[in-house]
Amino acid sequence: MTGFSFFSKEIMKFRSILILKVLVGLLLFEVGCTSPQSNSIAEVVVASDPLPSWNESSTKQQIIDFVTSTTTTGSPDFVPEADRIAVFDNDGTLWAEQPMYFQLIYAVDFIKKEASKHPDWQTQEPFKSVLSGDLSAVMKGGEKALLEMLMVSHAGMTTEEFGKSVNSWLQTATHPKTGKAYSQMIYQPMLELLEYLRANGYKTFIVSGGGIDFLRVFAEKVYGIPPYQVIGSSIKAKYDVVEGQPIITKLPEINFIDDKEGKPIAIHLHIGKRPVFAAGNSDGDYAMLEYTSKGDGPRFGMIIHHTDSLREYAYDRDSPIGRLEKGLDNAPMFNWSIVDMKTDWKVIFPFD
Amino acid sequence: MTGFSFFSKEIMKFRSILILKVLVGLLLFEVGCTSPQSNSIAEVVVASDPLPSWNESSTKQQIIDFVTSTTTTGSPDFVPEADRIAVFDNDGTLWAEQPMYFQLIYAVDFIKKEASKHPDWQTQEPFKSVLSGDLSAVMKGGEKALLEMLMVSHAGMTTEEFGKSVNSWLQTATHPKTGKAYSQMIYQPMLELLEYLRANGYKTFIVSGGGIDFLRVFAEKVYGIPPYQVIGSSIKAKYDVVEGQPIITKLPEINFIDDKEGKPIAIHLHIGKRPVFAAGNSDGDYAMLEYTSKGDGPRFGMIIHHTDSLREYAYDRDSPIGRLEKGLDNAPMFNWSIVDMKTDWKVIFPFD
Repeated sequence: MTGFSFFSKEIMKFRSILILKVLVGLLLFEVGCTSPQSNSIAEVVVASDPLPSWNESSTKQQIIDFVTSTTTTGSPDFVPEADRIAVFDNDGTLWAEQPMYFQLIYAVDFIKKEASKHPDWQTQEPFKSVLSGDLSAVMKGGEKALLEMLMVSHAGMTTEEFGKSVNSWLQTATHPKTGKAYSQMIYQPMLELLEYLRANGYKTFIVSGGGIDFLRVFAEKVYGIPPYQVIGSSIKAKYDVVEGQPIITKLPEINFIDDKEGKPIAIHLHIGKRPVFAAGNSDGDYAMLEYTSKGDGPRFGMIIHHTDSLREYAYDRDSPIGRLEKGLDNAPMFNWSIVDMKTDWKVIFPFD
Repeated sequence: MTGFSFFSKEIMKFRSILILKVLVGLLLFEVGCTSPQSNSIAEVVVASDPLPSWNESSTKQQIIDFVTSTTTTGSPDFVPEADRIAVFDNDGTLWAEQPMYFQLIYAVDFIKKEASKHPDWQTQEPFKSVLSGDLSAVMKGGEKALLEMLMVSHAGMTTEEFGKSVNSWLQTATHPKTGKAYSQMIYQPMLELLEYLRANGYKTFIVSGGGIDFLRVFAEKVYGIPPYQVIGSSIKAKYDVVEGQPIITKLPEINFIDDKEGKPIAIHLHIGKRPVFAAGNSDGDYAMLEYTSKGDGPRFGMIIHHTDSLREYAYDRDSPIGRLEKGLDNAPMFNWSIVDMKTDWKVIFPFD
């Protein structure tokens, strides 16, 4: 049993408790009105609220109206099942991204773990600053420093070795603010949205600036999204047969950056259809949202707005991570739904 | 209604006729033996023969045994549905590739069609030879000539324009030997195999050296394989917004060649799981078959051997197109099934 199967069970447990709460509420109501449908409460719950962690706001209603109208036969907005493509950014949209992208925290932790094998890192930047914990000095190294950190922690190993290393990190590392495992820093309302879309014939894809191999370690278990529906940034790779065994080795060279204008290009390359539904949270998702919204017929664009400094983080226009400016300014023009995390979501993370 | 929906209907018709033939055979048999199951012949047909265009050979039995053992709960070879990934080469595996890759014929036809707009092509190679019909002179230009032909016919236009152009070509162009539309030069036994695998929870993917955008024009309608399960070679692309409309333009620069060692790398990038089943026909598929076969647990490798000079083409070790040498030599070592088109297949193309 992996840490993840434990985690999946915990999510199930959480959901059961949630459904139980709603059931109790309904039962109390039932006592007073002796409805003839009292035998099928469970079905009523499922049918009436596919998004239990969302408050009864206009955002929630917009989602339900869209899914209903695009999946009801005979509706003028009906979308055939083959075209029901929904794309989701990951960092800041499906899981948190503060105080730093989690993949970057993985790189930092990897460098610390491997430091004893690389004595030169003690004197060589950006590793020296990483090891002394001076992340502001690391950041001063700019893109070059980041790239060097990513390359030592992501390349020069087989895809299997990389997957094992990330998996082991996910099972032990914890978030500095909440103390949760990073794989529990996912947004419960978004998990419900993914499930709701899939239950209505939508295929859900991740289209992330994060690394494709990194994402795939947890996407299937945590989000129910199989690896072939995960798109991300990538480095080059090579194929060899060593002692009769085929291996794929990750090379220290950028293959594709799946951010900004890269997102529609990656969608075209990996999916080959324009999405009907897109969700993001930063200006890195702007082109993806624009590409989605400008298609013919019904389209849904969603921006997750980080407004909850207490339960999560509050940031937008001035944040170096997840900067959101153009998206906020132009949302009305595209009719994008802005999700206000503070008021739209009852719960942020599972188990909260 | 597109030409393809007409085509799909024709395939349906063809299948109905095929099932009818089998039914008539069974009925004649029934008359003589008055079996008690005579009320459920249709079900018997479906259950007993998922591959009606395959002769009753050991190859067919190997396929059925593999699918049965990997999908039967409790079987030691059981493969969970999430891992049932099947990959297929396209040229020479799902459709014909002689006398020349069909995509190259498309490029030739495109150059002829557009020639009036490019007077310089009359004197400039390789276009001059293409226009005069001297394909052996074109071939002498080697890779550079081929690349130039592909770039003028595949780049410098939007993805939508390219799709429309290929679609229109597929509806009018015909194969020089058979007179069939190219989209009818597909192998009926392989269509049945694709359907049989999908009916048993397998996800079917194309992993082709051919162009990804070219393949996607017909893969969904002809093979039932959606665009996000089509992997192929690609050229680079850029995203722009022109007069408020997002467009993706194909650029004259190679992005990825999905052939030989490129195939396992593309499988890792697009699918992210090692396949359980792989089918190819040339040494360009060797690495994909090797990568598949060397995984843990049950694996199926299939090589389509072109042995039927009468109904299709006969070629292997010495063919410049679809050369198959290493695959034939090492098939026993990997336990790959060699499909002998002449003896294993009752029918080659639909409608034959």
